[in-house]
Amino acid sequence: MNLTNHQFRLAARPVGMPKRTDWTYSEQRAPEPNEGELLVKVLYISLDPAMRGWMNDGKSYVPPVGLGEVMRALAVGRVIASKHPKFATGDFVSGSFGVQEYAVSDGKGVAKVDTRIAPLPLHLSVLGMPCLTAYFGLLEIGQPKPGETVVVSAAAGAVGSAVGQIAKIKGCRAVGIAGGVEKCRYIVDELGFDAAIDYKRDDVKKALQANCPRDVDVYFDNVGGDILDAVLAKLARGARVIICGAISQYNNTGPIKGPANYRSLLVNRASMKGFLVFDYAERYAEAVREMAAWLAAGKLKSREDIVEGLETFPDTLLKLFKGENLGKLMLKLADA
Amino acid sequence: MNLTNHQFRLAARPVGMPKRTDWTYSEQRAPEPNEGELLVKVLYISLDPAMRGWMNDGKSYVPPVGLGEVMRALAVGRVIASKHPKFATGDFVSGSFGVQEYAVSDGKGVAKVDTRIAPLPLHLSVLGMPCLTAYFGLLEIGQPKPGETVVVSAAAGAVGSAVGQIAKIKGCRAVGIAGGVEKCRYIVDELGFDAAIDYKRDDVKKALQANCPRDVDVYFDNVGGDILDAVLAKLARGARVIICGAISQYNNTGPIKGPANYRSLLVNRASMKGFLVFDYAERYAEAVREMAAWLAAGKLKSREDIVEGLETFPDTLLKLFKGENLGKLMLKLADA
Repeated sequence: MNLTNHQFRLAARPVGMPKRTDWTYSEQRAPEPNEGELLVKVLYISLDPAMRGWMNDGKSYVPPVGLGEVMRALAVGRVIASKHPKFATGDFVSGSFGVQEYAVSDGKGVAKVDTRIAPLPLHLSVLGMPCLTAYFGLLEIGQPKPGETVVVSAAAGAVGSAVGQIAKIKGCRAVGIAGGVEKCRYIVDELGFDAAIDYKRDDVKKALQANCPRDVDVYFDNVGGDILDAVLAKLARGARVIICGAISQYNNTGPIKGPANYRSLLVNRASMKGFLVFDYAERYAEAVREMAAWLAAGKLKSREDIVEGLETFPDTLLKLFKGENLGKLMLKLADA
Repeated sequence: MNLTNHQFRLAARPVGMPKRTDWTYSEQRAPEPNEGELLVKVLYISLDPAMRGWMNDGKSYVPPVGLGEVMRALAVGRVIASKHPKFATGDFVSGSFGVQEYAVSDGKGVAKVDTRIAPLPLHLSVLGMPCLTAYFGLLEIGQPKPGETVVVSAAAGAVGSAVGQIAKIKGCRAVGIAGGVEKCRYIVDELGFDAAIDYKRDDVKKALQANCPRDVDVYFDNVGGDILDAVLAKLARGARVIICGAISQYNNTGPIKGPANYRSLLVNRASMKGFLVFDYAERYAEAVREMAAWLAAGKLKSREDIVEGLETFPDTLLKLFKGENLGKLMLKLADA
């Protein structure tokens, strides 16, 4: 094979929003797989808020992407050559393949994907990491009980939309916070949330008051900032706050806004807890089976926001931070 | 009886530090107890950081002290007249008797105090609410395991000094954060903490680095603000942060400083949880028995900072917020 591999590499650590000049678009020959390796043609690349954190220097739950390295990204693709005993040419696979057209892998963290259950892109959304994040975060950390009120921010996003739907499956009242009329309509009319709060138009505090008559038992936070503070002020006794992300703060150049209302945890005997989905890796298969059953039963829906073309990556990524995506944002590189 | 009762009443809701003019010093005849009531001569009044919160308007875990009302305070005293079946003249009792010389009570929340176990003032410190707060907060919320590192702020105070000693009893490494050389020396040399950090002299972040080589498993926070942020940056995986108080923020006239490093909860799969000691009321007796045994065995020590004279109340209270007390701050009104 003589394949040209285009890649986005991190050229500089961004200050604030990532700029075009923070990236290098490089072209090289795709490597051949060695013994024990497989070569994947990347078809869809997942764009996730967490990527912003990976671009920063400093200690976190994974090492930062090094300067000059291919940008880290989850993706799905097809095996086009394999010297790995577990994978054969033609297999669809998911893994951390990076922002590039071809990836060589030793198979670690690579999973086969069954496209008979659902089309390939859905394995990056409702059967993929965002929904696993919602599943374990809500159920393990949030421990929602039937009749409780679950609030989620970034509710029209890949994680948030799954949180609200799983909350409904578990018999809870689901209230989503999202930006804009279209997103709010989507989560209520299409996904079955009980209520939506439009943080761009509504006074979030008043809207929480109106939509959470029995206060907030579980809050799944994807955004941080003022919205986290507003929900903290409305916690029920014994509430659980799940810290999943803080997208409102990721491109801050000034100091991070900590939650000024954190003392509500004391008054309400409430907890705020962080988690990382990777800690549940041994249970992914079990969760995906349950999610696939919900999907088949029409209880779990998803929408994908698919942008074509690897070369659009620097701009497309920004849609996440501007709140412009509706559903799971991903790049499509080629047909399956 | 014809007794004169001096009282401090809340005259105005303080802005920032309570001023002398926020109080009225009133004088009236002590009431006679009616059927089912007892009359207590107040001997020692507990001064606690929580009192600042009770002076503010707004929803909290207890209603605010009303304007014109006697200031709420825990105290110990002696029954001087009783028409209550459970209490007899001469009994020593503890309860929420207020900042005054005589209190009439219907007996609710009043407990008899055994001065054979320990002198009367100790029933407001190491056998009282501060130590109960340390006990349930550390053991129930913090769940410390032998060998873990427990950090506590306001470590020379009534709650903090108990937290560190109980951590030692449970086989943990105890590190205290306190203000000033004397307090730091006290918690290490007299109370047996493993290390002390002087937030007035040390760079708290660097000192945590030096004194917590295996990071912080349990943090018992009494202060909030920058110190909370510094410890959050040093959490171990799976750490538990106990929110007990936030004395650095109580007299803020500007916005509360939320913990900017709260995302450390995510990276470290850590939790931050609030609690109120009142929720454990049914287990107070059990805890006091255990604390009394530790006290008798010399494993639990306390120091009382006793200021004489009810009339000093407005100034003495400020010692708490200026960090000028060493040990449990209380007013002495009369000998037992």
